[in-house]
Amino acid sequence: MNTIKGNIIEKEENKGAEILSIGSELLLGNILNTNAQWLAEELAFLGIPHFRQTVIGDNSSRLKEAILEASSRCQILITTGGLGPTPDDITTKTIASAFNTPLEERNDLLIELKTKLKDKGYILSKSQKKQCLVPSGSEILKNSTGTASGIIWSPIPGFLIMTFPGVSSELKEMWKKEAFPWLVKNRFSNEQIASKILLFSGISESSLADKIPHLLEKENPTVATYASLGQLKLRITARGINLEEANKKIEPIEKELVKLTGSKCYGENNQTIEELVIKMLINNKESIAVAESCTGGGLASALTKIPGSSKVFSGGIIAYNNSIKQELLGVAEEIITKYGAVSSQVVEAMSEGVQKKFKVDWSISISGIAGPSGGSEDKPIGLVSFCIKGPNKMVTWEEKFGSYKTRKDIQKLSVLKALDRLRLCMLKQS
Amino acid sequence: MNTIKGNIIEKEENKGAEILSIGSELLLGNILNTNAQWLAEELAFLGIPHFRQTVIGDNSSRLKEAILEASSRCQILITTGGLGPTPDDITTKTIASAFNTPLEERNDLLIELKTKLKDKGYILSKSQKKQCLVPSGSEILKNSTGTASGIIWSPIPGFLIMTFPGVSSELKEMWKKEAFPWLVKNRFSNEQIASKILLFSGISESSLADKIPHLLEKENPTVATYASLGQLKLRITARGINLEEANKKIEPIEKELVKLTGSKCYGENNQTIEELVIKMLINNKESIAVAESCTGGGLASALTKIPGSSKVFSGGIIAYNNSIKQELLGVAEEIITKYGAVSSQVVEAMSEGVQKKFKVDWSISISGIAGPSGGSEDKPIGLVSFCIKGPNKMVTWEEKFGSYKTRKDIQKLSVLKALDRLRLCMLKQS
Repeated sequence: MNTIKGNIIEKEENKGAEILSIGSELLLGNILNTNAQWLAEELAFLGIPHFRQTVIGDNSSRLKEAILEASSRCQILITTGGLGPTPDDITTKTIASAFNTPLEERNDLLIELKTKLKDKGYILSKSQKKQCLVPSGSEILKNSTGTASGIIWSPIPGFLIMTFPGVSSELKEMWKKEAFPWLVKNRFSNEQIASKILLFSGISESSLADKIPHLLEKENPTVATYASLGQLKLRITARGINLEEANKKIEPIEKELVKLTGSKCYGENNQTIEELVIKMLINNKESIAVAESCTGGGLASALTKIPGSSKVFSGGIIAYNNSIKQELLGVAEEIITKYGAVSSQVVEAMSEGVQKKFKVDWSISISGIAGPSGGSEDKPIGLVSFCIKGPNKMVTWEEKFGSYKTRKDIQKLSVLKALDRLRLCMLKQS
Repeated sequence: MNTIKGNIIEKEENKGAEILSIGSELLLGNILNTNAQWLAEELAFLGIPHFRQTVIGDNSSRLKEAILEASSRCQILITTGGLGPTPDDITTKTIASAFNTPLEERNDLLIELKTKLKDKGYILSKSQKKQCLVPSGSEILKNSTGTASGIIWSPIPGFLIMTFPGVSSELKEMWKKEAFPWLVKNRFSNEQIASKILLFSGISESSLADKIPHLLEKENPTVATYASLGQLKLRITARGINLEEANKKIEPIEKELVKLTGSKCYGENNQTIEELVIKMLINNKESIAVAESCTGGGLASALTKIPGSSKVFSGGIIAYNNSIKQELLGVAEEIITKYGAVSSQVVEAMSEGVQKKFKVDWSISISGIAGPSGGSEDKPIGLVSFCIKGPNKMVTWEEKFGSYKTRKDIQKLSVLKALDRLRLCMLKQS
């Protein structure tokens, strides 16, 4: 019998998964448990029921107790943390001892670890050797981006442990490359949940919600919105006996949403605007350069994080100083004096300047007041001027992000806005 | 007898506190458990040992199980969530039923709730009336900013429950105004905990650990290390009868660590290297500009995130294209052809070029292979060349971050390395 509560599938025969986060820094409140949230989302996506999360410090007797408790309650125990080389990293050792199993040194791990360290010019230290010890009979969960490997191990029938390091980037990479395919292949995921995220710009969460009350009420698929700084996500989640059936339920809802919102819906799932823009530029065989003032390299940095960006991104000039705007970008001194550095006249001159210097098809220029000082009544903190110059046209505009926003937020919002406007310019052109 | 394990005070007579977060949205990964982190910090501040956190969904049988388990393990159970008016808010009811205690309607709560609702122009609905029910014999934890009150209740000897709503602002207000003074008054807090974080660069976690085995074994203060991408933190945590005494215990350990690690210890607590470097430049009245290739604006972006950076940061050139390196930075074509774009010769020419253009005291240039493609046997992914040119000297070097690292990680590590080396150059100069 299956019942559903608060979106979680509860199968009487399925004892589901638990997440056990290990680290005294969590109990001291030094860090936020973002790993547990991320894993919880992944479990929901796989349709694996998830009924409990626990946090335990670096203490072997309490950790052992928590592991044994979980083994009597759940089917899969996912642990994070405690796989490092120092004495307070006790996860693997404690798991082995909880099930009275000896640790064995794995030669393949030792060789891999030595290679990784050699790459960096280090040699294996005594304390690091412990990272090659795993309980007898366990499989290895490979860590391609770090030195702490995990294990997949079933110490008793019907109970499985997967261990991950606490470093989020490594955990995510290991989950995607190793654990996720393993769970699917070994059929831990019975009723499957498919979900699709749609990404929006230029529309607020409440305006979107007002457009779709009938969708927000649906039960299968469910539709929910999530807003964060400069971004609006909508998640469609459907259940089905398999992924194909679940995905079929998503399709009509997605179509309706795209029709309702037009170009405001810019992408899906983990796509970013910068990824999309780089892709469009590559497809159009067009090049781009930037001239940044208040974003100080943030726009260029966003674009160059995308693999392949070197095909279209030529570079840029960070003209933080007004004298640099004049000398390197050819902005006339009179224009700066007359209209101020944050003005449509200056960003237009910046765009023209960088386009000439870099001989590119597109240029973006940004100049604004990011704060925390430098604002005036006329030109408050959060005021940002933009110019995009393309092969056929030029767009100049300003945004007021609000003077109560932080410097970092104003910089981030400026970058997102510039990228989104570039996307719209390219859409119109094609 | 007191013993300390993994940074947390374990008194044999003190079974400490546990945090129980209630809400299916946490298990679905929809929201981050920021409440648990905040409460954990507060408990540490009060010196109340805290050994476990649990997250449970809106399911009464599982919640009851978790409450009863905790009652056998800890002295204080702090719950968050599930105090609202809707059917999935089951915390109070479940706690009462776990200890076979009837609920009673509290007239004072009813009057207060009606007043609060009247203030907002609402009248009491049937479902809201349930927020006035508490287990017989419990005290009320007043909620001055919301409608969901909590309870303080000892259902069995030596065990106390405190309940809070999941809304963070209400929880914090209730904690500060009601729970914190109550705990102090009732002598749950005998000792206080002080802690200090030291920040390191240029030393790996295991090398640091190998240097300080005697400190890692200490019981009061405790010393623990935490590594993340390109960063190493060490936390010293001390207990004392008051904060002053606890802080005094930290001092000698801090001095010893600073002496042992020298300039590898760059800061404390929440400081960042970019903050530190901007501060040093401001103090020295020196200016800086950057020439970036593989980091694509990331270095400039890190520096300009710091308020006040405009006083010393003039700008930079992102020379992603080799032609830009030649045209804007004056790097000779022959040098690029002969040594390749990732070479000491090219970064030196880039540094010289940008220093001339921007007329600054310091310049940093970076050129490397961030991947995922573009690597060769000679020059693998992760190889990055750097040059720092200062008023009196020039440093050129290369790093091998490892070809298994992601593009983003290589970019981030390059930025951190460049900033740290700049810090060391400035230290030597002064």
